[in-house]
Amino acid sequence: MNGHIRRTEDFRWKDIPVSAYKPGGTHFAGITRQLLFDGGEGLRCQLRYFEVAPGGYSSLERHRHEHAIMVIRGQGRALVGERILELATHDLVRVPPLTWHQFRPGGEQPFGFLCMVDCGRDRPERPDAKVVAELRRDPGIAEFIRL
Amino acid sequence: MNGHIRRTEDFRWKDIPVSAYKPGGTHFAGITRQLLFDGGEGLRCQLRYFEVAPGGYSSLERHRHEHAIMVIRGQGRALVGERILELATHDLVRVPPLTWHQFRPGGEQPFGFLCMVDCGRDRPERPDAKVVAELRRDPGIAEFIRL
Repeated sequence: MNGHIRRTEDFRWKDIPVSAYKPGGTHFAGITRQLLFDGGEGLRCQLRYFEVAPGGYSSLERHRHEHAIMVIRGQGRALVGERILELATHDLVRVPPLTWHQFRPGGEQPFGFLCMVDCGRDRPERPDAKVVAELRRDPGIAEFIRL
Repeated sequence: MNGHIRRTEDFRWKDIPVSAYKPGGTHFAGITRQLLFDGGEGLRCQLRYFEVAPGGYSSLERHRHEHAIMVIRGQGRALVGERILELATHDLVRVPPLTWHQFRPGGEQPFGFLCMVDCGRDRPERPDAKVVAELRRDPGIAEFIRL
């Protein structure tokens, strides 16, 4: 194993399947997942590539573990905490612990980002009605979020 | 802290310094390091960006911890074990444990790559004369490596 995994076409890699974002659910849309690196000896993190089609969105969620993100395709928007971020290619985003977050494309092109995450991590939590009501007090967030 | 770190110009980010590749030494050349993410809560890895100028090279070394690499700028070549890899933008490379490796640009443009690595890791080992002699038995490797 020489460890070389070639890019085969734009944002696709040899023998790395394009997977469902999550096993199931209706709280996300138009988003795929590719697991680029799955930990290793002395390497306790994964590197994933997520791609969101125009009109799609990741799930609105939070968890204790942090996310470290780099945009590598297109532009996007993200809710992180109480702010809507405008993201350009190669921008970085850290999602702090227990911070509500959601990602959407910025326009009519696919939006893709790397996400580094610990192999051992807590499960995401989704917002209940009370949290959604609180988030929606901000008109910009109310417009942004998708459930 | 909203966690958004903007790209300021090509392969440079706001408030992320361009650092020396290593504290000192003559076994590398023309290479810089930017620490994009330095672990976090429930996140036991770093993400670094290394950039090698034309004519430059990373140090020839090995260690027990694995490296997970994605090229994001230009083309390069790498020794990984007993093979010389030709690397294009967005190619991935896994460097297995205790595997000799070195990175060089593929041409007259900068060569840049992300490297995910565990926050807690063993120190790199450099080759002694015996190892160098063994590596040089292969004419391709002999031509490639820089000490």
